[in-house]
Amino acid sequence: MVKAFIFDVFGTCVDWRTSVAREVAAVLPQVDALAFADAWRAEYDPAMARVREGNRGYVPLDDLHLENLRTVARRFGVDAPDSLNAAWERLDPWADVTSGLSRLKQKAIIAPCSNGSIALMTRLARYAGLPWDCILGAEIARDYKPKPAVYLAACAALRLDPSEVMMVAAHNGDLHAARATGLKTGFIPRPTEYGPTQTADLEPGDKWDIIARDFNDLADKV
Amino acid sequence: MVKAFIFDVFGTCVDWRTSVAREVAAVLPQVDALAFADAWRAEYDPAMARVREGNRGYVPLDDLHLENLRTVARRFGVDAPDSLNAAWERLDPWADVTSGLSRLKQKAIIAPCSNGSIALMTRLARYAGLPWDCILGAEIARDYKPKPAVYLAACAALRLDPSEVMMVAAHNGDLHAARATGLKTGFIPRPTEYGPTQTADLEPGDKWDIIARDFNDLADKV
Repeated sequence: MVKAFIFDVFGTCVDWRTSVAREVAAVLPQVDALAFADAWRAEYDPAMARVREGNRGYVPLDDLHLENLRTVARRFGVDAPDSLNAAWERLDPWADVTSGLSRLKQKAIIAPCSNGSIALMTRLARYAGLPWDCILGAEIARDYKPKPAVYLAACAALRLDPSEVMMVAAHNGDLHAARATGLKTGFIPRPTEYGPTQTADLEPGDKWDIIARDFNDLADKV
Repeated sequence: MVKAFIFDVFGTCVDWRTSVAREVAAVLPQVDALAFADAWRAEYDPAMARVREGNRGYVPLDDLHLENLRTVARRFGVDAPDSLNAAWERLDPWADVTSGLSRLKQKAIIAPCSNGSIALMTRLARYAGLPWDCILGAEIARDYKPKPAVYLAACAALRLDPSEVMMVAAHNGDLHAARATGLKTGFIPRPTEYGPTQTADLEPGDKWDIIARDFNDLADKV
């Protein structure tokens, strides 16, 4: 019996790519906004890897995003205002998310289990209308997914056994890590997260506990 | 400019006394339920004091509540089921709270800054209809109010300066501590929190930044 659903956010709940590109276009009209968004996002995993691997103490994603913004701006030969970092707080949800989450919330606790900070997830939820019961994820674990500590900290914060919690993501890697930690798993495809030429995570990569078309289909199936 | 309102919960948002008494009466009909609720609550501060003073590591309030339940049940000469501990997840809000919070949420971030755990605050919010943007408080600080660390951890989690955050409480002591830590302060009286013979916190004890009759009056005044 699943007592809580926890969610990947970037890509699974919100379309970061076109949203960030929109914000980039507004302040840096001279660059290819989608290319800039992709380059910014490409620095995400390497930045977290330094924390995951113990080469750096925990730094909230907001700060990593800002460092990465400066790196990418240099590469594109532009001066980006620091305020552009708030682009990550203004990401549009996929069309099914707010209705699906509202339905799931009637059945169980719902919370993000994102690598975003509490501040970032809070502001994004207000922008995108994500009706979370609480904010879980990297900051309460002070480490980054897919480290087991992040999933376990989310379950511990809810005082639930991992077997009572389902991780929902559009990314097979996230679900492999959650399953290895004892959580239930739910897969939703987001085949255009990385644009029209996306090649990864188009299909479920394992027999996940639930495989759904979108958040409303997930709500139907639980 | 206040960018976030953070709230004491027990007493300020919810009427713990009559709610806990109702749950006590349902499973321990042989005891004076209000007296039992008062005795249970009276163990709250001494239990946290051991953590605050460094004589014990951080223990979530759920566990302190359970230890206190057993202490009080022994004193009343009854066997209390552990399940009674969930009474603290089913506390009724004061009549003005859900409407007032919904209005305040349109103006700024709203979050509890309670000594309750994330799990307890999450389940209570679902029961009582408290529309928090996120859950802050003791658990993210791993210490208990009125230690400054708890207020500071709440501001840090929101990436706000303490001067941008208003602590709202029915208890002057909570507000003295919050003000000393640099936060703005809002006072709401709850003159029957401890029953009809309450003597403390009937009036504001200082010139708090906002003094309001209830949560809707607070929403009017900000």
